[in-house]
Parts: sequence; C-alpha cells; structure tokens
Amino acid sequence: MRHNDRLYEQTISSQTIYDGRIIKVKVDEVRLPNGKTAKREIVNHQGAVAVLALTDEGRMVTVRQFRKPLERTIVEIPAGKLEPGEDPLECAKRELAEETGYQAEQFTHLSSFYTSPGFADELLHLYLATGLQPGPVKPDDDEFVEVEELTLEEAKRLHERGEIRDAKTVLALFAWENRVLKQGG
Amino acid sequence: MRHNDRLYEQTISSQTIYDGRIIKVKVDEVRLPNGKTAKREIVNHQGAVAVLALTDEGRMVTVRQFRKPLERTIVEIPAGKLEPGEDPLECAKRELAEETGYQAEQFTHLSSFYTSPGFADELLHLYLATGLQPGPVKPDDDEFVEVEELTLEEAKRLHERGEIRDAKTVLALFAWENRVLKQGG
Repeated sequence: MRHNDRLYEQTISSQTIYDGRIIKVKVDEVRLPNGKTAKREIVNHQGAVAVLALTDEGRMVTVRQFRKPLERTIVEIPAGKLEPGEDPLECAKRELAEETGYQAEQFTHLSSFYTSPGFADELLHLYLATGLQPGPVKPDDDEFVEVEELTLEEAKRLHERGEIRDAKTVLALFAWENRVLKQGG
Repeated sequence: MRHNDRLYEQTISSQTIYDGRIIKVKVDEVRLPNGKTAKREIVNHQGAVAVLALTDEGRMVTVRQFRKPLERTIVEIPAGKLEPGEDPLECAKRELAEETGYQAEQFTHLSSFYTSPGFADELLHLYLATGLQPGPVKPDDDEFVEVEELTLEEAKRLHERGEIRDAKTVLALFAWENRVLKQGG
C-alpha cells in the first residue's frame, strides 16, 4: 500500500505542461515524508524496447543514428518506442526487423529498467536476440539509420571513444561481455 | 562538421515549452536528410553522476528512494544532478557523502552515457568508488533515502524481483559482475 511506504510522496496537485507525440510533461506538488511540500517535474513516456542482437559470428548489430537532443550521431543497439498496448517482445521483433532487417530465432529477456527515474517514467525492455536471419529493412518515415556489426573488441573501442554512449547500449555491452566471460570465450 | 554528417537534422525552428528547476522542454522542427520536416520533442537536463561504491567486504552501497515518476520505491546506487559548472568527479564525491556518509579513497571513471537519447540530453557519469570510510549523512532537504549494503547475489536477486530497476544501477551491477568474473572471484 502506498501510504504505508515510509518514503511515499503524496500528490497534492498535478499540472499538465505539455502533451506531445512522444512525451507528456507535468509538474506535481507533493507532500514529503516530513510533512513539507515540494515540486516534482515529470516526463511520461510510453516505454520502449532494445535488442542486443548477436550474429552467429559473434557480432553485435548496431545502428548509427543522429540524435537531435545530443546534436550528434551515436552508435546504439536497435530500439524503439512501444505502441499503445503493444507487447514488448512483439515490439522488439518489429523494431529489430524494421531497423536492421534481421529476424531472430530466439529472443531472451535480459532486463527491464527505467532509463531516468528521477524525472521520467520511461521503462525500457532489453532482449537478447540470436539465430539471426537477414531480410529487408523498413525504417520509419522520419528515421535514418546505418547498420553496422561489431565484435566485442570493436564495440568496447567505440565505447572508449564515446561513439557508443547511451545507457541501453553500454548496458547491453556489459551484459554481452559478462556472457563471454562466463562462457570462457 | 555537422552539415557533412549524412544523418544530420538541421533545426528550422525551436520552441521552449517549459523551463523548470530540473528539466527544460522544447520542440524543434527539423529538416530530415531526405528534405522532409519532422518535430523533435526534447528534454534538456544538467547531467548527473552515479557511484558504484564497493565496501572492503565486497558489498555495493545502495539507496532506497521513492521516485515520483514511477509512484514507487526502488533501490539505486547513489546518484545526483550536477550543479552548473560542477566537475563530475567532485559531484560524485559530494553525492556519495551526502546520501550514504561514505568517503572513498579511490574513484575510477567507468562510463559516461546518455540515459535516454531519443528525447533527452541527460549525460550520466558513472564512477567506481573503493576504500570506503563511513561518515555522517547529509541528504538534501527534499530527499529521503534509506542506505543498504548488498552482496552481488543479493543485488542480482533484487534485480530479478524488479526492486533494482533503473538503467544506471543495472549497468553498475553488470559492470560489477564483470569485474568479479575477470578477477576469478
């Protein structure tokens, strides 16, 4: 129960600032555990999926993409927003196929995590995809990506150089290295 | 050079929607590589730090915290926003001390990553802290946290149960497991 949580912050009022295509922004006034009040700035997001797709040759499939908030191009694992009501696994299959052309024989759920819980509710579901079969790419109308396949060493080098630079991809890279270390390869 | 980037999206116009304490929200109209236009919803954020703090006994220092965007309490590694102009390493030392009381003898930079580059420019700097010495906690006025120290197995269990559920903490967990695997421990 919420009100039994010692750390709970009760909403006193909530004001919607912006209701867009990708995000909704609101400002809540809350009652703190010590009785005082504070403002919380909150971004609502539909949630997303990302895929660590490994080829039979042990390469990670990545997409190079311009990210307007950063004003730069970075290298990421394939990912995309959930449609309303969409199953995360179906979304993962769809995004992998649309962005890279690959279909996968096996999908394994690796983790689901909030990308930035201090101000946003975006939940990202990360899958491992193996048994990849190539096919045609079908990117969204406003999406321009370049597909690249990287060895673990190449990916680690891109991370050191700052071209791999987003949470889901760095996380996927660590998860991948982990698997390799456990398999003694 | 930006305009030499095949994937670059040129700003046609930019509208500020909200200018808050933690985030700023704007909507940019951009020219796509194919000449068409699109809207980009963008959240600006000052950036943040997070600390994977490991005790001499091999436990990870965590803070249990209510997160208003999620309407729930989760277990995270210590973290906090950068003050304007603040050095990330100084911020990491400050946040670790404020939230957990610990001072660390060694800080090592592990990674810097954008938490959600599709809509936000928040850059998070992750450090490893070792050689921990306890001291008094000094949380922010509007911050209520409970400190817990977890073994790798306990942390993995909390991750499986969904109580460890944010990108930086899952990423730190994988980085930690990696180190343990490499050290053969």
